[in-house]
Amino acid sequence: MQRLHISTSTREQLLDITREVAEAIAASEVAEGVAVVYCPHTTAGITINENADPDVARDLLETLRRLVPCDSGYRHCEGNSDAHVKATMVGSSATIPIENGHPLLGTWQGVYLTEFDGPRNRTVIVTVMGS
Amino acid sequence: MQRLHISTSTREQLLDITREVAEAIAASEVAEGVAVVYCPHTTAGITINENADPDVARDLLETLRRLVPCDSGYRHCEGNSDAHVKATMVGSSATIPIENGHPLLGTWQGVYLTEFDGPRNRTVIVTVMGS
Amino acid sequence: MQRLHISTSTREQLLDITREVAEAIAASEVAEGVAVVYCPHTTAGITINENADPDVARDLLETLRRLVPCDSGYRHCEGNSDAHVKATMVGSSATIPIENGHPLLGTWQGVYLTEFDGPRNRTVIVTVMGS
Repeated sequence: MQRLHISTSTREQLLDITREVAEAIAASEVAEGVAVVYCPHTTAGITINENADPDVARDLLETLRRLVPCDSGYRHCEGNSDAHVKATMVGSSATIPIENGHPLLGTWQGVYLTEFDGPRNRTVIVTVMGS
Repeated sequence: MQRLHISTSTREQLLDITREVAEAIAASEVAEGVAVVYCPHTTAGITINENADPDVARDLLETLRRLVPCDSGYRHCEGNSDAHVKATMVGSSATIPIENGHPLLGTWQGVYLTEFDGPRNRTVIVTVMGS
Repeated sequence: MQRLHISTSTREQLLDITREVAEAIAASEVAEGVAVVYCPHTTAGITINENADPDVARDLLETLRRLVPCDSGYRHCEGNSDAHVKATMVGSSATIPIENGHPLLGTWQGVYLTEFDGPRNRTVIVTVMGS
């Protein structure tokens, strides 16, 4: 198990952690299995999406902002209810197959921390299972 | 593998099952690994979110109700199409890292069964992998 | 680890892959554990939902289309930004417990590839962990 320490720089952000996840898998010396990338925060999540055009990340954040606006009469008084809802919609983890010691991501896939209430210092936990 | 038996009391509800999940992990005697918390139902799901302020759960259910209203001209005739859609948006499982025999949840994280078509008797399956 | 090769026939589709997943689990000879069903594409995903009434799949696709319309002023210029957003909302994988060599799906559950930018040839990776 390895912990990644990540600083986000704006309120909402997709932060590419593909390289860090691949390094954690390599360090585990597991050749075949799965990696679980887990976010121990309730206003951020983990997703896998396109790593080529940064506009995909912008469109994703804008669409979620339209669906779950920042101020929509929420009861939770900390002003980040939208971030909690988005965290559940995106999910708290991604599970990725491992082959020959490498994450079996598709050609266009990257692993992202999805920040919805930054900027903050975040931790991501990578657990590698297999042999 | 352990089965939790849970009764929900209203149509829509977030039910905190963190303690039950921690007990299933302890019973497995796995010190390092992951726990998969799985919902074998199609109108309920599993999510991880804030365990401190119950308004977070209320805001989540209200936001999903606004996005996916109960009656929106669905074809499925059982009157619970919204529940099926919400189940897919939330997801059928959560995977949680385990360290020293404990779920590695963040300070503010709890594990929730998300009921969208209750009240019902629900089963949750906890599978623990590791050593 | 096994690769399923699947052809989708329309732009948006839920394709039932339950039988193929069960066969991959059987072939692995793992009796107790979990199966990770992973989609290595960024405009498709994996979900678990009802396998009885095909209207559930239609309602799911229509609801996502209403929430994330095809043309909504996205920046990504390939005309499939909606598909990327839907892929993140649905998720890139499902993790299913295994008991006695069978996927422990609920009575009404099926495993689906969710196509959002077809028709295409898609690959699904099934990784089985356990003993």
